[in-house]
Amino acid sequence: MHFSERIKALQASPIRRLIPYADEARAKGKKVYHLNIGQPDIKTPKEYFEAIRNFKAETIAYVASQGLPELREAISGYYHSWNIPYAPGDICVTNGGSEALALAVQVICDPGDEILIAEPFYANYNAFAETALAHVVPIPTRAEEGFHLPPRRVIEELITPRTRAILVSTPNNPTGTVCTAAELEMLAGLAKKYGLYLIADEVYREFTYPQSGLPGGDGDPFTSLGHLEDVRDRVIMIDSISKRYSACGARIGCLAIKNEAFIAQTLKLCQARLCVSTLEQVGATALYQKTSKQYLEDVNREYRARRDTLYAALKEIPGVICEKPRGAFYIMAKLPVDDSEKFIIWMLQNFDVNGETMMGAPGSGFYAVPNRGRNEIRLAYVLNQEALVKAAAILKAAVAAYPGRLEAIQA
Amino acid sequence: MHFSERIKALQASPIRRLIPYADEARAKGKKVYHLNIGQPDIKTPKEYFEAIRNFKAETIAYVASQGLPELREAISGYYHSWNIPYAPGDICVTNGGSEALALAVQVICDPGDEILIAEPFYANYNAFAETALAHVVPIPTRAEEGFHLPPRRVIEELITPRTRAILVSTPNNPTGTVCTAAELEMLAGLAKKYGLYLIADEVYREFTYPQSGLPGGDGDPFTSLGHLEDVRDRVIMIDSISKRYSACGARIGCLAIKNEAFIAQTLKLCQARLCVSTLEQVGATALYQKTSKQYLEDVNREYRARRDTLYAALKEIPGVICEKPRGAFYIMAKLPVDDSEKFIIWMLQNFDVNGETMMGAPGSGFYAVPNRGRNEIRLAYVLNQEALVKAAAILKAAVAAYPGRLEAIQA
Repeated sequence: MHFSERIKALQASPIRRLIPYADEARAKGKKVYHLNIGQPDIKTPKEYFEAIRNFKAETIAYVASQGLPELREAISGYYHSWNIPYAPGDICVTNGGSEALALAVQVICDPGDEILIAEPFYANYNAFAETALAHVVPIPTRAEEGFHLPPRRVIEELITPRTRAILVSTPNNPTGTVCTAAELEMLAGLAKKYGLYLIADEVYREFTYPQSGLPGGDGDPFTSLGHLEDVRDRVIMIDSISKRYSACGARIGCLAIKNEAFIAQTLKLCQARLCVSTLEQVGATALYQKTSKQYLEDVNREYRARRDTLYAALKEIPGVICEKPRGAFYIMAKLPVDDSEKFIIWMLQNFDVNGETMMGAPGSGFYAVPNRGRNEIRLAYVLNQEALVKAAAILKAAVAAYPGRLEAIQA
Repeated sequence: MHFSERIKALQASPIRRLIPYADEARAKGKKVYHLNIGQPDIKTPKEYFEAIRNFKAETIAYVASQGLPELREAISGYYHSWNIPYAPGDICVTNGGSEALALAVQVICDPGDEILIAEPFYANYNAFAETALAHVVPIPTRAEEGFHLPPRRVIEELITPRTRAILVSTPNNPTGTVCTAAELEMLAGLAKKYGLYLIADEVYREFTYPQSGLPGGDGDPFTSLGHLEDVRDRVIMIDSISKRYSACGARIGCLAIKNEAFIAQTLKLCQARLCVSTLEQVGATALYQKTSKQYLEDVNREYRARRDTLYAALKEIPGVICEKPRGAFYIMAKLPVDDSEKFIIWMLQNFDVNGETMMGAPGSGFYAVPNRGRNEIRLAYVLNQEALVKAAAILKAAVAAYPGRLEAIQA
């Protein structure tokens, strides 16, 4: 039977394709510490469950395609608390940040159009671009520079008549890097000069931590692309409750922009898929309206402590290169191995410390350029500190024992 | 700012764009009987709410991209009760039937590819095709023939080297027509001869009713495309709990096919959007596992009575042409008016009977060919019988009073 060229060209998720090896390891009785996916162990606030349990209607009906008015009102209030002035009418509720990204690409890209994204990047950006027959053009960054953006002229050289947007993930998945205000101003200048959109993936906005001696400084406040007044009509904000409220499985996100025409175009696509889950929107409304500041502060403190713990442990492993990340819950580290995907499979199949092993995500999955990131690994600090210490000790022992160990990493 | 050609070309939902007129009418104190959208008033089974209220995990985590194993198991059991042999591995859980349709188009169509669909058809088919840059090629049908398919040679003439699939909605939205076994066999023959897929939208499968003197006969059992053994690897089943369990806002559907390679390609897209709502899948599992046969029988009996009531009332309106539909919960009727969209707006703005008016969906929204269906209206019998009788009486009075009334409809 026939398959489309577009689906044949699409790569399977580089994070999810190693799951069978982990299943096999567990089936053999090995304990696996999962630092490979961004699924936190943090509890979802009880307000979510209470609102859903208290839902009174007897028919689960369609709701507005743009999203429940009370949810959009609550999201607007949240943005205002960050000094980002989105009104309820500027917001479309989506099936997670994923659908918001897919919608944004459809609204702005025709086949052959291009989106600039700092590399390494979240692998699914590629899937959303390619299904729309648009292409990701990578902006190179380096572990040694904390994955910050290269100078303006490097980015400017990548812009063509087909460039439609620059996508900015801050705090970044997979690197944990937080863009500085100066970096965002530089991108805003390019967007204005070349008539581009800025797609802002800020789903980790709540998760920035103090950091010394690196760009972004020690405790600088987070700068959102939503803070830049003169590009408001061209900033497409992508957001999600998945990480903020540890509700990944709720699949509630949003797209927001100060641009009525853009919302009108987006709504055509929203209407085609009718609406987002009614009950999940009820739960999300409660999360936005009622979750205490204390919850978010506690979660931030917990992730910060985990980052410090994991970073310190990684620094103890000879040959590992990484900067202390300022946000999200990921560390992208260079390992002294020939190929991190082979190394991860080897750990699952052939290595354990007292019956335990660990798993990260291979770095190459976050690069569009072939062979880049082959000795990098993304580690998600989504487990408690005790587990992270054990996982890092296993990683250290595995690096020492791995047959494909390198003596030095080429920069 | 720039918008893609694809989004500019996309029409806003013809059903939803009249909503502001209804809002305005209600704001002026008019009561509006809504026969314009397929949102039933039937209660969602209590098993859905119970399962969600009893959910125990404290973190709403991602689940498998293909769908919860227990839900796919339950859906498989449901199909087996219909003698359709889908195994859990043949099924992908989706965000409603809508996402299943969008996935199917992406997996089989490249830009310029074509999908044959009997016209009139559900307007969003066009949106899913056009966002993938594929095109709907309409197969003409007529109200006077109960909207059944034309002879094989008429369809065969529409097939080109770019044709990828024939999409079959049975029972049909908007016409209520149920395909006969002979019609499906004819399509299966064409699919085999020309190497096409058959996309089967059977979300109204539970809703077929006895009917005399018309193709399909009186109480013939429903034939599913899933019953045809020799096209199993090319039938893409699209399904949903929205209508079956009156849970439109749950946004749980599925795509099923006996074709491992097809499921593997579809999974690449499912993985990109991570997963479908965890709690909604828990609720849907309970619906499939626990809803009594009695519930479905009661709902079927209720819709059948509503169909009979509405059909009888429509037959009392001079100049109205419609056949008694055998399924779903829609009647597509020809009215003696110049333009049903103008007529509906006129009813909302300028007409009432004791402060009450009614609303249907304009027929032209279900046609791809310009100017077709202009005097047709789709009426959804989603209200109780008393309300339907009142709505039909209002329609009768409105047709008599309408300035754009036609004395005879051209066939």
